[in-house]
Amino acid sequence: MNIVLVAIGNELLNGKIQDKNTHWLSKYCQKNGFNLLASHLIPDEYEAFEKTLNNYQNQQVTIITSGGLGPTKDDKTKEYLSKFFSLPLEFNQEALDITKKNYLDKRREYNKQYKYEFIPAGAKALYNEVGFAPALKLELSKLTLLSLPGVPREFNKFIENNLNNSNVDIKTHLIFKTKEIGETYIFNELVPDLWSKLERYGPVASLPHTMAVDISVQLSDVTKRDEIIDMVMETKLREHVWNIGHEPLEEIIIKKAKEKKITIGFAESCTGGLLSSRITDISGSSTVFLGGICSYANQVKTNVLGVKESTLEQYGAVSTQCAQEMAQGAQKNLACDIAISTTGIAGPNGGSKEKPVGTVCIGVNSKNKTHTHRFEFQGERLDLKEKFSSKALFLLFDAIQDY
Amino acid sequence: MNIVLVAIGNELLNGKIQDKNTHWLSKYCQKNGFNLLASHLIPDEYEAFEKTLNNYQNQQVTIITSGGLGPTKDDKTKEYLSKFFSLPLEFNQEALDITKKNYLDKRREYNKQYKYEFIPAGAKALYNEVGFAPALKLELSKLTLLSLPGVPREFNKFIENNLNNSNVDIKTHLIFKTKEIGETYIFNELVPDLWSKLERYGPVASLPHTMAVDISVQLSDVTKRDEIIDMVMETKLREHVWNIGHEPLEEIIIKKAKEKKITIGFAESCTGGLLSSRITDISGSSTVFLGGICSYANQVKTNVLGVKESTLEQYGAVSTQCAQEMAQGAQKNLACDIAISTTGIAGPNGGSKEKPVGTVCIGVNSKNKTHTHRFEFQGERLDLKEKFSSKALFLLFDAIQDY
Repeated sequence: MNIVLVAIGNELLNGKIQDKNTHWLSKYCQKNGFNLLASHLIPDEYEAFEKTLNNYQNQQVTIITSGGLGPTKDDKTKEYLSKFFSLPLEFNQEALDITKKNYLDKRREYNKQYKYEFIPAGAKALYNEVGFAPALKLELSKLTLLSLPGVPREFNKFIENNLNNSNVDIKTHLIFKTKEIGETYIFNELVPDLWSKLERYGPVASLPHTMAVDISVQLSDVTKRDEIIDMVMETKLREHVWNIGHEPLEEIIIKKAKEKKITIGFAESCTGGLLSSRITDISGSSTVFLGGICSYANQVKTNVLGVKESTLEQYGAVSTQCAQEMAQGAQKNLACDIAISTTGIAGPNGGSKEKPVGTVCIGVNSKNKTHTHRFEFQGERLDLKEKFSSKALFLLFDAIQDY
Repeated sequence: MNIVLVAIGNELLNGKIQDKNTHWLSKYCQKNGFNLLASHLIPDEYEAFEKTLNNYQNQQVTIITSGGLGPTKDDKTKEYLSKFFSLPLEFNQEALDITKKNYLDKRREYNKQYKYEFIPAGAKALYNEVGFAPALKLELSKLTLLSLPGVPREFNKFIENNLNNSNVDIKTHLIFKTKEIGETYIFNELVPDLWSKLERYGPVASLPHTMAVDISVQLSDVTKRDEIIDMVMETKLREHVWNIGHEPLEEIIIKKAKEKKITIGFAESCTGGLLSSRITDISGSSTVFLGGICSYANQVKTNVLGVKESTLEQYGAVSTQCAQEMAQGAQKNLACDIAISTTGIAGPNGGSKEKPVGTVCIGVNSKNKTHTHRFEFQGERLDLKEKFSSKALFLLFDAIQDY
């Protein structure tokens, strides 16, 4: 199935809200063997809607619109559909039934002003489990059109309930996740002939992340999987590959720690809770993650983590010495096997010549030994929190491997 | 200036990466008085590129492409430009100079294989401060085309350096941020004539968030600002408005706490560090936020926060009793004026009939008194972390107001 998303709403383009439906849908399509052809974020303007749909007129495609089904005056998707396909808005009993059921279920009274029961002639009203307004489906020769609510929870639930394909083999993408090196270095110096070697097995892509590069091959023949892995792991790339598969770093950390029955904990300063939050995004993290102490103020570093006043005075809070005592304090307080600490400067203020914005010191305490690292990164505050935490997670990953 | 973003890359559509450039650019445009007309996420395919650009052929518009300028074989933007505008790729001395400078600055050697010095005839090579490849600019009668790298840091920096407009009055959007009520209730029951009253002053929009709705008016006459505020604050909406302005909740919390010289701290369980992370996303948060204890495991709740074993045995970790002791423990450990605690079930596992997934207990300790709340939300793990933390932040906001 070929899918195109048309996300409608001024709020997606004027800085008020970040579109989350594209990324969710892209992952969903990947998992279910659908093909997301494109995603268009357009304003509440008929002309933009018309132009976008015109581009898909004679294609075998399912166009999903999101947004504009609600009751306020800036909700215009039904009008657009009516105009574009020349289908007048008509009373529809099914739409009314769905609406009434939704209002009854949520113990609210339906107000006919909302006009949920008027939909384009020929459209089918579909049950929307989470919200109030029915979703709509139009089938027009090659093109299928699905009109869904824009609120992510309603959008996601509707798709999960209505679009699924369990017969797909999702192992057609083979991904090598690497760390510590950039893509120019990989493909021009480290393994200059890798790309063309991989290309024999299917389309190749390279995707740079924060301190990591994913190299993927879309396999035309799934049985070649092991052959490719062997081939790649015989090259110099080997020592940089930390995962062969889809799982993100946080998930691999939980998995490896579970296997080895290792518990983990954090003492965070400059990452401000992000390290803990990234780990607890993973379901099942509670079996290995005991907790974290976010010691933003120095008094918390000393009072809770036991960092010495003299360390702060002599070396400052952003120092490998402080990182060391923080990691030790976390290990002691949380009684975990491996403790990681971060202290640094996320900016935009607080930098100096010796310790510019982007400086981070990370401590790793494992089996009663602590080692520390110091790095300098570039970027804005949120970027830096992301980079600091990624680096800390890679060090945690190494510590779990070495345990 | 009218801007259209064309984000090129299979990775944006196959679930591997979330496009961050659209949201960043939308905020940037808003701040600088530019108009982001649309954002198109398309794959690495010439046909998709062609169709998208065709829609803007005779318009006064700046098209920004992102991605596909790098050195790997899936970087094809220059080829697309060359083909679409019929401009052969030619050697360009400026492109070579920029490239050489970038490599020299980063102490790396330029490899002519990358072909950064070959660009479409007539294009101008522009300095790219963060990355290696030069950005490109093409001016074609009405249309201006800017080709930028896709990596957010490079993309953002280039735009900040090259597109700015400081003569814009950014107060043309008047935003009322409300909480606790949905948009259907607001516009159909609470203040049914508000929309049409606001519309007299300019286009109105309603934007629902997690537990909040923003109502905005794009003012045609800025001098009417106070008149509109007075009008709105005389309606029943008044008690739900928590901010008149752009600032997000986290920023308002820091601002109000600073004004009142209040320090804050957290004890997090189900939010797993997200509460601390949201607060520390704000620059300047260190003046009021002392720290947080993420007590994911029960042993951390008892050992660090001092939650009684008997409380956990009798009521369980997800209980208002536990939330109360967590908030008290946080206040004591962190020595802060207001402490907030969260304990709940983010799922997908761990729910029961009495305490389903989505249950959260929140404790608020202020001036030696603690009150607790219990809520039930719906959604998936990451949604729920977001909702739990938003609810906790609203309660923190109230506690600061009442302090």
